[in-house]
Amino acid sequence: MDDKLMLMIPGPTPVPEQVLLALAKHPIGHRSGDFAKIMAEVVEGLKWLHQTQNDVLILAASGTGAMEAGMINFLSPGDRVLVGNNGKFSERWAKVCQVYGVNVEQVTAEWGKPVDPEAFRERLEADTEKQIKAVIVTHSETSTGVLNDLETISRYVKAHGEALIMVDAVTSLGATSVPIDEWGLDVVASGSQKGFMLPPGLGFVAVSPKAWKAYETAKLPRFYLDLGKYRKSAKENSTPFTPAVNMFFALQVALKLMQAEGLENIFARHRRHTEATRAAMKALGLPLFAADSNASPAITAVAPVNVEAEQIRSILKKKFDIILAGGQDQLKGKIFRVGHLGFVSDRDILTAVSAIEAALQELHYENSSPGAGVAAAAQVLTQA
Amino acid sequence: MDDKLMLMIPGPTPVPEQVLLALAKHPIGHRSGDFAKIMAEVVEGLKWLHQTQNDVLILAASGTGAMEAGMINFLSPGDRVLVGNNGKFSERWAKVCQVYGVNVEQVTAEWGKPVDPEAFRERLEADTEKQIKAVIVTHSETSTGVLNDLETISRYVKAHGEALIMVDAVTSLGATSVPIDEWGLDVVASGSQKGFMLPPGLGFVAVSPKAWKAYETAKLPRFYLDLGKYRKSAKENSTPFTPAVNMFFALQVALKLMQAEGLENIFARHRRHTEATRAAMKALGLPLFAADSNASPAITAVAPVNVEAEQIRSILKKKFDIILAGGQDQLKGKIFRVGHLGFVSDRDILTAVSAIEAALQELHYENSSPGAGVAAAAQVLTQA
Repeated sequence: MDDKLMLMIPGPTPVPEQVLLALAKHPIGHRSGDFAKIMAEVVEGLKWLHQTQNDVLILAASGTGAMEAGMINFLSPGDRVLVGNNGKFSERWAKVCQVYGVNVEQVTAEWGKPVDPEAFRERLEADTEKQIKAVIVTHSETSTGVLNDLETISRYVKAHGEALIMVDAVTSLGATSVPIDEWGLDVVASGSQKGFMLPPGLGFVAVSPKAWKAYETAKLPRFYLDLGKYRKSAKENSTPFTPAVNMFFALQVALKLMQAEGLENIFARHRRHTEATRAAMKALGLPLFAADSNASPAITAVAPVNVEAEQIRSILKKKFDIILAGGQDQLKGKIFRVGHLGFVSDRDILTAVSAIEAALQELHYENSSPGAGVAAAAQVLTQA
Repeated sequence: MDDKLMLMIPGPTPVPEQVLLALAKHPIGHRSGDFAKIMAEVVEGLKWLHQTQNDVLILAASGTGAMEAGMINFLSPGDRVLVGNNGKFSERWAKVCQVYGVNVEQVTAEWGKPVDPEAFRERLEADTEKQIKAVIVTHSETSTGVLNDLETISRYVKAHGEALIMVDAVTSLGATSVPIDEWGLDVVASGSQKGFMLPPGLGFVAVSPKAWKAYETAKLPRFYLDLGKYRKSAKENSTPFTPAVNMFFALQVALKLMQAEGLENIFARHRRHTEATRAAMKALGLPLFAADSNASPAITAVAPVNVEAEQIRSILKKKFDIILAGGQDQLKGKIFRVGHLGFVSDRDILTAVSAIEAALQELHYENSSPGAGVAAAAQVLTQA
């Protein structure tokens, strides 16, 4: 049906009506007092969401642009960095390093498994000459639904003392706690179309004082992505280049909604939805791609057996106007991914699960009894 | 008055209601057939607007991001380039080159004057070893309201044969003719919040086959701004990184509006508004900052004598909710700038002129008789 689309993908995520309406306001001048007021307010809100007193900078860019900025502003050619790589997005950060002539060592894990914090510890401890300049970690690996153990890795980085820790928090921020100051995270990048409940178009980068120290001597070239320019302008509640003004209107509303819900409630909601989705898939006999202990709070990847992932997606789209994500690269056709990120309610989880059940019935899938998925999800949702 | 704001600045520019409402639609997945259809349609529309068969790529970025991409994808460290510099924005492109280790020679002119095409010709003709890799020109210099003679400069670049011509068309595209294929322009960058009648958030770069040839050997590092990635994805009506989906909805509507009006009518409207504004300022005894022969079709800079530019701006803002732009950098307080770019009608010009007249009356300015500005503007508008 037209206009009945329901997004259950890891971005773009659903957007609340009042956020959409804020987008439709007439733009204002970005060098005005009115804009400065909005900027001041959203920066405060972002600091709250990021659990930090550090700078949080706002770019007109996708999450990749934000993450690239978060890396290239603090490194020089030939710098030695460790990159955790266990999926499409973490792999991307290794590629960015290579493009800029940064000396990358990868700590890899099979797609679907988390990177091993001990592998980081070993390399960091062995680096007695303190040559490792940065450790780059993807918190929630969107391509596989794996949540890496950022807290433990960050502890090892802090023990090293020299290296910065740079985090892709694109699908973890606003879904699970990323306590930047408590964990001592130096760079944390994210994008608007994820936990922020906004359409795509803005990227965010939180930067620690230690990272700013590295900025002073970092030599990779950048201009539009030069975060020093954003910091300088932010001191005057402004931006160095024309900001995506209407997205700021929307961000202002979205942050108010998030503040009204409260951080702990937001995280609990994502946890509940993750557990309900996983319980439902298990009850339906559909194998989960990531272990419970490493489950992303934003997305659940499912690797069905005896039924085609793409057929399930196709039925959900055609019959129920629900969009699930497919697998990327080597996982194409092998998994489907249920997004439960941002503006998602308990009702949405029941809806997605019941539609998956209906698809399984249509496909004559026999590993589960009809109704088992919804029952399992409902149990989690009502107990929570 | 609340919600009565009228933007007469060179960006953000006013946005039509149906474009704003398109922004407020629920996002769709960017890896969907529905998005691919929109992408195919807007790329066709952009080619029409750019008067080109070349690629036109769409970035989630400001105009500066688009222009930087347009430069760094086709150059290597140490390359010799000529940059025309006669204002804040053209000055910026010289800085970008410097950041990337490109060897910049600047062809400067006083702010308010156009760069001299003959200065380009001389350097290009003297370069018999064909070492100049690019000539970088700002078509409409937004900071001063000067339109540089791009057509003549591009002719000299074509005669050189080797150098690429890279153009900042941020406030000329959609306001005056920029016939990319006819003039042989290699790179043309622009931004959504200008002639496109959209809020800020998208950047556009048109790229010629000759520039793509240079891309193959160009060595400046880039990832998010790597236009080769955008070209590759565009072949499948997609983008390499998450696009600003809602801005695509808006772009689709804006391009339809522009196509309904027609290129020639759009250009004639901007010409008429430029002439009417200039005639009015002259009738009011307010000196224009750029000569008639080099007047930008997007913005008219006025350098008032015996009355303060900032006082005029202040009265327009406070009493009439009209936002004019001020001067930038060394022009701060010395000029005001009237934007007539994008979704601006004849009525808007009369409105702005009459408000400027009212401000002059309030300031007891005596160089003109009341009503002279509106009368002069009306004459241009009714004759055209």
